Amino acid sequence: MSEIPTLGIDFGGTSVKIAAVEGADLVSELVRIPTQEHDGPTPLIEEISKKVAELRAKIPGIAAVGIGVPGAIDFEKGITYNLTNVRGWTNVPLRDIVQEKVQLPTVLENDANCMAYAEFKHGAGKGYQNIICVTLGTGVGGGLILNGNLYRGSRYAAGEIGQMSVDLYGVDGPYGNRGALERYIGNRQIGEMAAQKYYDAGEDAPADLSPENLCKLANDGDQVAVAVWDKVATYLGACLMSTIYLLNPDAIVIGGGVAHAGDILFVPLREKLKNSLTRECFDELVLSHARFGNTAGIIGCSTMARELLA
Amino acid sequence: MSEIPTLGIDFGGTSVKIAAVEGADLVSELVRIPTQEHDGPTPLIEEISKKVAELRAKIPGIAAVGIGVPGAIDFEKGITYNLTNVRGWTNVPLRDIVQEKVQLPTVLENDANCMAYAEFKHGAGKGYQNIICVTLGTGVGGGLILNGNLYRGSRYAAGEIGQMSVDLYGVDGPYGNRGALERYIGNRQIGEMAAQKYYDAGEDAPADLSPENLCKLANDGDQVAVAVWDKVATYLGACLMSTIYLLNPDAIVIGGGVAHAGDILFVPLREKLKNSLTRECFDELVLSHARFGNTAGIIGCSTMARELLA
Repeated sequence: MSEIPTLGIDFGGTSVKIAAVEGADLVSELVRIPTQEHDGPTPLIEEISKKVAELRAKIPGIAAVGIGVPGAIDFEKGITYNLTNVRGWTNVPLRDIVQEKVQLPTVLENDANCMAYAEFKHGAGKGYQNIICVTLGTGVGGGLILNGNLYRGSRYAAGEIGQMSVDLYGVDGPYGNRGALERYIGNRQIGEMAAQKYYDAGEDAPADLSPENLCKLANDGDQVAVAVWDKVATYLGACLMSTIYLLNPDAIVIGGGVAHAGDILFVPLREKLKNSLTRECFDELVLSHARFGNTAGIIGCSTMARELLA
Repeated sequence: MSEIPTLGIDFGGTSVKIAAVEGADLVSELVRIPTQEHDGPTPLIEEISKKVAELRAKIPGIAAVGIGVPGAIDFEKGITYNLTNVRGWTNVPLRDIVQEKVQLPTVLENDANCMAYAEFKHGAGKGYQNIICVTLGTGVGGGLILNGNLYRGSRYAAGEIGQMSVDLYGVDGPYGNRGALERYIGNRQIGEMAAQKYYDAGEDAPADLSPENLCKLANDGDQVAVAVWDKVATYLGACLMSTIYLLNPDAIVIGGGVAHAGDILFVPLREKLKNSLTRECFDELVLSHARFGNTAGIIGCSTMARELLA
């Protein structure tokens, strides 16, 4: 079955990515617009509209537009409250501005929700009704599928797994939320943890303490790097355990750069969950890598756009 | 508008309580059967059936039966997996047994879910779409209303707020879940915390360290008792904060014995939530005492029973 092509527009702190999508497949080039080279919403939206027009000239039949943004939005009104790492985007009625310019049905959603929706409809969460999606990166984001629908919460702010506490005596989160998960397993924090562990072991730390390199080192048998991932699994496992006791999901889907750590992360994570959950919560639980990488946002919001047409 | 009377049967470790209910009102005496005086399910169900027949003879028009039980169930199949503090109730098809005996439509539900449903339909949660209900007592239970429906989870095990962790380095929970909330603010743990605090303060601890008495002492100005409730608010607040970041609810409803502490607990709890949540999560959040006390279970399951007739 061929799908109606729709456009996905994924806002990021570095670039805005745009592509035409059918189902889970990009059917155009991936266009990138540097976010910071445009001074605020108006010139950036102008540039986006130009690229959209070019893509529509190449791909016939594009019927709707989805926009994913990093930060708080009002889903019903289509307004961005504020975007993380992008200034000048407070209270912008982005959905209606874009809809007016491109004259196509348009939907605006938070990017972590887009990722969750992509995995639910086309990826690792397909076929499940209750899914917790986590994205690991600079920060830790999340999205929830409950009873077969994206769960947004009362003010569209649900799924903030990175702000949940794993330690009531822990380090401060950005909102006074002590023990916030993302203050332990954000990319930078993993690097700092690794530096400390190499120091404690009396070893010189490698220059590159990125999650990618720590993953490579662990897979090559570096025991300090292995211990770093075990500790990441302890923090992530503590938070997921609480989330699972609360929501009793079918599946956990983990995406973002850190998820590439693979078995080095997933094996201890599964073990820790097994040792801290009831059988009702653990026995049938599926723990998966996300299927989609940096196109998850585009695929999620373009899928939501397609559903505007139903 | 007068409601169709239905029966609520609330299983507890001490007694089974039965009453006829219209809407949120008990319209019969509250019948109690001592749970432990009956050796397992068969004689107890026999006794329940007798009491049900007596109530039906007094209250005409009873049209359905709801049963609430403390423990894990299969909602679709109407089977109890195991009941907390009651032996001999593993894999009992309780719903169908009762339905067969009384010849009325019957529903079986977990008791914390019944409490949540009672508050949602008739009590402190009425009019809200997303509600987190917590019951504080010997243990800590919970129930979730999401998007205007009771959320049960994939294996009907959702809402286990008492098993969520507030401290990944904390004391062991019953399933290896370190830092389990109920190991800090169960009734017994509150008493132990109080004993320690009186000792640390160089004061003789009162003989009665029940939550009820600690509440009375705090309201009478006992500073150690005030500090106990502040600490309870710290633990409960840490867990609720995580729950709120995950689910972004309209309302939190707190019931059970400890909730009677009132402002002594609610004032510091509200302050701690305010100081650790984003404005999207806190500004419109309603924090309420449960309306119903020990009849919450009966009202919740009898309401579910009424909905079988719709």
